[in-house]
Amino acid sequence: MAIKIGILGYGNLGKGVELALQRCDDMDLVGIFTRRDPSSITPLTEGVAVYSVDQMEEFESEIDVMICCGGSAKDLPEQTPLAAQWFNVVDSFDTHAKIEEHFQRVKEVADKSKKVAIISVGWDPGLFSLMRLYGTSILPESKYYTFWGKGVSQGHSDAIRRVPGVKNAKQYTIPQDAIITAVRKHEYPNVSAREMHLRECYVVPEDGADTQAIEQAIRTMPDYFEGYETIVHFVTEEELQQNHSGMEHGGFVLCAATTGVNNEHNQMIEYKLELESNPEFTGAALVAFARAASNMYENYEDGCFTPFDVRPRDLSPHDGEELRAHLL
Amino acid sequence: MAIKIGILGYGNLGKGVELALQRCDDMDLVGIFTRRDPSSITPLTEGVAVYSVDQMEEFESEIDVMICCGGSAKDLPEQTPLAAQWFNVVDSFDTHAKIEEHFQRVKEVADKSKKVAIISVGWDPGLFSLMRLYGTSILPESKYYTFWGKGVSQGHSDAIRRVPGVKNAKQYTIPQDAIITAVRKHEYPNVSAREMHLRECYVVPEDGADTQAIEQAIRTMPDYFEGYETIVHFVTEEELQQNHSGMEHGGFVLCAATTGVNNEHNQMIEYKLELESNPEFTGAALVAFARAASNMYENYEDGCFTPFDVRPRDLSPHDGEELRAHLL
Repeated sequence: MAIKIGILGYGNLGKGVELALQRCDDMDLVGIFTRRDPSSITPLTEGVAVYSVDQMEEFESEIDVMICCGGSAKDLPEQTPLAAQWFNVVDSFDTHAKIEEHFQRVKEVADKSKKVAIISVGWDPGLFSLMRLYGTSILPESKYYTFWGKGVSQGHSDAIRRVPGVKNAKQYTIPQDAIITAVRKHEYPNVSAREMHLRECYVVPEDGADTQAIEQAIRTMPDYFEGYETIVHFVTEEELQQNHSGMEHGGFVLCAATTGVNNEHNQMIEYKLELESNPEFTGAALVAFARAASNMYENYEDGCFTPFDVRPRDLSPHDGEELRAHLL
Repeated sequence: MAIKIGILGYGNLGKGVELALQRCDDMDLVGIFTRRDPSSITPLTEGVAVYSVDQMEEFESEIDVMICCGGSAKDLPEQTPLAAQWFNVVDSFDTHAKIEEHFQRVKEVADKSKKVAIISVGWDPGLFSLMRLYGTSILPESKYYTFWGKGVSQGHSDAIRRVPGVKNAKQYTIPQDAIITAVRKHEYPNVSAREMHLRECYVVPEDGADTQAIEQAIRTMPDYFEGYETIVHFVTEEELQQNHSGMEHGGFVLCAATTGVNNEHNQMIEYKLELESNPEFTGAALVAFARAASNMYENYEDGCFTPFDVRPRDLSPHDGEELRAHLL
C-alpha cells in the first residue's frame, strides 16, 4: 500500500518535494498545507488538494508522513513539533548551532505521540553529515574538510537584499582552490570555514544608490561576510536575471588520513554533489527519508532521529534480498 | 568497557585490521587465530597472542567480535559461519555473485547462536554499495556507474601468475576516460564493466619463455581478460619490485540524474576513494563495522546483516548527542 504523504509549506522546497513524489510509485501525495489562502496556490501536480495549515489535524488518519518544508529560522521550530503531534514527520532543519535544541523540542512531542520524526535531512546537514560520520568512524584519526559551492546561498543573498540601496542580489559561495589543493596533497591544513571559502556577490543597486557604501556594508556584515574574502560586482537587474537566476549548489567533503605502521599510506575519501537545483535535490532527500520514517514506524520505532539513526535500507522501496542482489 | 576483538586469518587484511585496532581506544585485540603454526607468526602489536584456529571456541566468553580476514573464494564460506557459532562476526566477503548464498549460510548460524553477523564490509561491496543505495533511493530515476581503479587487482595478478612461463605479475584496473567523460556530461551511456575499464598488466616472464604465447593466454583468459581492452608489458623482476609493489586501489561511484518539471536540472553525486593501501583501508572498515556489530548485539539484535542494515551511528564510538553536536 502506498505511503500517504502531506507537504507542509509550499515554497521552492515544497515544490521540490512534490516533483520528487511524482517519481516515486510507492508514495501518494494526499495534500499540500499552507498558511496562505489555499485558493491562491496551484500545485504542479494535477488534482492535488491544497488545505489550510489549520486543517492539518483532520488528516491524522489520512496521512502517514508530513514533510515539513518551511525555513529553519522561523518556520520549522514551530511546524515540525506541531505536525509531530499527529504524523510521522521529516524536516530539513539546517541551523547547525540550534540542531540539539530543535531535536529535543521535536523529541518531546514525538515521544508522546509515538510517531517517528527525522530532522536535519538534506545534504548539509544530511548526506555530508553522513559522509563525515562514515569517514571518521572508519578512519578515526582522519581530518575532514567540508567545502560548499560553487553555489547560490539563499541566506546570504537575502542578507545583501536587506542592505539599504540594494534592489536585488545573488551570492555565490566558492571554495578556495589553494585550500583544496593543500587538502588533496595531504597537508592537513588547520583552516576555518572563513579561510576555506570566498563569497562572490552580484548586486543590483537602486537608482542613484551609493555603491561604495553598499559594498562597505556587505564586506563588514557580521556572521555573513566579515572575515571572508568577498568580491562585489554591481550589475543591472537584466544581467542578474539572465546570468544569475539559477538555484545550483553543491560542494564536497574530503576526509584525509594516513594508515600503516609509520603512517606511510595516504587514504582519501571524497563525496561530491553537483546540483543544478538545490531545492529539488533536498526535496528528493526528504522524500527518501519520509519513506524511512514510514518504515521505522511500521517497525514499531518512535521518537526523534537524524540521518545518523536511519538504516540505509529503510530509505529504499526495495527489500533486503533485492538490495543485496542489485546494489551490494 | 572496551570491545574485545579477535582476528581470524593473518594475511594482508588481518594486518590491516590489527593496525586499525591500534588507533581505536574503545577496542582491545585479544588474539590472532591462524591455520598456520601460531609460533611462526609475529604480530605487529607487541604482546598480542597468536592461537590456532582450533582453539577459537575456548574464547567464546573472552571475545565480543571476531573479524574474519580470509579470502572470499575458499576461506570465508567456512570461516564466517564457523566463528558465528560463538561470536559476533564481520567479514569482507566480496564475490558479488555469491553474496546471497553466503548471507543465507551465515544467517542460519547467527539466527541460532543469537549473534550479530555483518558480511560484505569494505569498499566494494561496502561503502560503494552504500553510495549506490543512498544515491538511487534519493534519486530513483538515476543511473549509477561504478569505476574501479586505477589500482591493483590481486585476483587478476594471481590469475596472470598461473599462466605457464610467467614468473611474477601485477595487474592494474583502470577506468576508461571516455566513459567517465560521458557520464559527467550526463549522457547516460549504457556500458558494461568491460567497456568501462581497461586492464594493464606488468609481467615478468621466466627465462626463455614465449612472451607472445603468454600475452595471448592473458588476453583470451575468460572472465578475467577476455572482452577487456588489455595492455601487456613485459618487465624484469627488479622493475616489478621497484615500480609495482604497492597495494593502492580505489575508484568512484557516479550517480547521475535529472530532476524538475521537464528534467531540466542535472544532479550528480560522486563518491571517490584514493587508497594507497587497500588492505589497511578495508581493515579499518572491518573494525568500524565490528564496533557496530557489538553495538547492535548490545541492543538485542541478532542475525545476519550487511552494511545496508547498519545505522551509521552504530559505527561510531561517540553517542548521539556528541554526533549531532560535532558531525551533523
